[in-house]
Amino acid sequence: MTVSISAADLSEMPSMTRYSTNWPGLIEAYRPYLPVSDTTPVVTLLEGNTPLIPAPALSQAIGRGVQVYVKYDGLNPTGSFKDRGMTMAITKAKEAGAKAVICASTGNTSAAAAAYARRAGMRAFVVIPDGYVALGKLAQALLYGAEVIAIEGNFDDALTIVRKMSENYPVTLVNSVNPYRLQGQKTAAFEVVDVLGDAPDWLCIPVGNAGNITAYWMGFTEYHQQGKCARLPKMMGFQAAGAAPFIAGKPIPNPETIATAIRIGNPANWEKAIAVQQHSQGEFHPVTDQEILEAYRLLASQEGIFCEPASAASVAGLLKQKEHLPNQATVVCVLTGNGLKDPSNAIEYSSNSIKQKIKADLKTVASEMGF
Amino acid sequence: MTVSISAADLSEMPSMTRYSTNWPGLIEAYRPYLPVSDTTPVVTLLEGNTPLIPAPALSQAIGRGVQVYVKYDGLNPTGSFKDRGMTMAITKAKEAGAKAVICASTGNTSAAAAAYARRAGMRAFVVIPDGYVALGKLAQALLYGAEVIAIEGNFDDALTIVRKMSENYPVTLVNSVNPYRLQGQKTAAFEVVDVLGDAPDWLCIPVGNAGNITAYWMGFTEYHQQGKCARLPKMMGFQAAGAAPFIAGKPIPNPETIATAIRIGNPANWEKAIAVQQHSQGEFHPVTDQEILEAYRLLASQEGIFCEPASAASVAGLLKQKEHLPNQATVVCVLTGNGLKDPSNAIEYSSNSIKQKIKADLKTVASEMGF
Repeated sequence: MTVSISAADLSEMPSMTRYSTNWPGLIEAYRPYLPVSDTTPVVTLLEGNTPLIPAPALSQAIGRGVQVYVKYDGLNPTGSFKDRGMTMAITKAKEAGAKAVICASTGNTSAAAAAYARRAGMRAFVVIPDGYVALGKLAQALLYGAEVIAIEGNFDDALTIVRKMSENYPVTLVNSVNPYRLQGQKTAAFEVVDVLGDAPDWLCIPVGNAGNITAYWMGFTEYHQQGKCARLPKMMGFQAAGAAPFIAGKPIPNPETIATAIRIGNPANWEKAIAVQQHSQGEFHPVTDQEILEAYRLLASQEGIFCEPASAASVAGLLKQKEHLPNQATVVCVLTGNGLKDPSNAIEYSSNSIKQKIKADLKTVASEMGF
Repeated sequence: MTVSISAADLSEMPSMTRYSTNWPGLIEAYRPYLPVSDTTPVVTLLEGNTPLIPAPALSQAIGRGVQVYVKYDGLNPTGSFKDRGMTMAITKAKEAGAKAVICASTGNTSAAAAAYARRAGMRAFVVIPDGYVALGKLAQALLYGAEVIAIEGNFDDALTIVRKMSENYPVTLVNSVNPYRLQGQKTAAFEVVDVLGDAPDWLCIPVGNAGNITAYWMGFTEYHQQGKCARLPKMMGFQAAGAAPFIAGKPIPNPETIATAIRIGNPANWEKAIAVQQHSQGEFHPVTDQEILEAYRLLASQEGIFCEPASAASVAGLLKQKEHLPNQATVVCVLTGNGLKDPSNAIEYSSNSIKQKIKADLKTVASEMGF
């Protein structure tokens, strides 16, 4: 069988491309909203412009005319939303003449920092606690050329060292205290509004350090001030139940959750996140690891979308709070990272398994498939 | 430190968004070029519109005004170019009323088939040879909800079974013999032209089954017929030296290469690929695993781009053939899959390693960093 397109079909083609493919990266696309000048040397991997994917199975499960979308930020160049902040942080470091950057991270931040720093011709130092054996995401940073130092101590000691290094040596700190990161991250809210034509009713988002919820709110409010959206969303922040300081109202000393990207007991952006919740009439809620994993599986097996477990907290939270949604509401769930970042979870928590040693015979195979 | 944008800055913002974020998926974007009608039920994850990233380190390494870009198709929704073909194949299966699809694949095809089939509400069967233990990419398919059957036999037996199943039972075959897949894949060439304004001088591409080189050429020639590009590229196909039937001029019985996605000894699209080479005045060349790994590391550590080893064959080939490039040439290297698909290679082949057990003391750490 071959497929052919007739000349008649081709002659009906529009002379203009209706959809542009020339996305220049988020700094160039949203330049007027960002702290860059005409002479700023933009370091970009053409991040941003990630798909806002309709989630028909979720919409149907909720009913009442509710429309659910997921903002799939795992399709950024290094596989997470951290690229949005890192293109800004590394661009500003480059502008300031930096030759090296540093961060303490065992996760998505280290990968993003390494990729953008190396692209800019800088050294990228990553400090981690010693004894951290699970290579996982760190493998990605190493391949990008990160120089990884494992110190004797815990993660707080690593944070202390990178801060001291940046104060005493010519290395720029790109941990979440770097203010340019939230500037870059806010562009995700711009993209949501640019696609929907307005802000959604609810913005559901996983909350760890609370940087992303802060950045989204910055984005929505700046767009609102400019008349780009008529309304502001209710910001719904979801924390893993074992790492939920905003629900406890105080830091959690030993946070525990399968959702490692939000396993944070003492969020860096505490006051900002509380302000977001108040100004947006938003809410913080906990979701259990069980609920997170169910949402993780549902997204993959019903919507065809593979995210990190932490990302699925936004969908788990939506499903838990769905009764409070207005009819006909528009909801956006933020999926912060690509499921490929964490293949061991896919193996461990898939509900399907492989049927082994099946005879290579048509009837046997058909019978195994239920025919 | 805080970053603020002044009201004056904001008032200079354009009232229109210059860059659209409303990409509707490749079928909708290139509808006149594809075998769909107004009533075709499009199954999409908003695939396509992947970034064409400038590669300044490669351009500089080659010199003579040559401009190198990489088409990073690893940023498709399931992490590889297979999504382009699968949105078409599953859409057409859905249109024909299919309730299930089937393929034989241990790699990117199985993940794409599962994601799109499950999104369309179909069952997704994946048949693999028994004893295949490395879960890797298969884990992704399982999480998407694929039903995986491991048969007693080799990969050819698996191919035979899925073909027979599709002939005798109501399951649609979505292996590479499905003709709609190349239709979807050709859109990558459209995107390249839409960004560059014309076809490149060289299109460098990894060659395994030779479906993608065939599809790109279809795309370039269709666009050329429509006057969308003034020229056609020289198609440069690169095969792993241990799996290079087009260089040998005959099938390779036991292909061997680290680049598993192109470890194919008897390509399904043999005649088509030879025709592409002849019509484009193109060339096939081998690249060694060593050269592939060097390109893989270079892309990550100098360009900030993490691809599958097989993808890096296009860059390895370019570097090997660079002397034959005209001055000022424009080159596009196709990167077919996301490096996150294959984290074990990142761990094994990174040139960097972790410095362990470093005392958590400023001077010690600084000294380790070379300050």
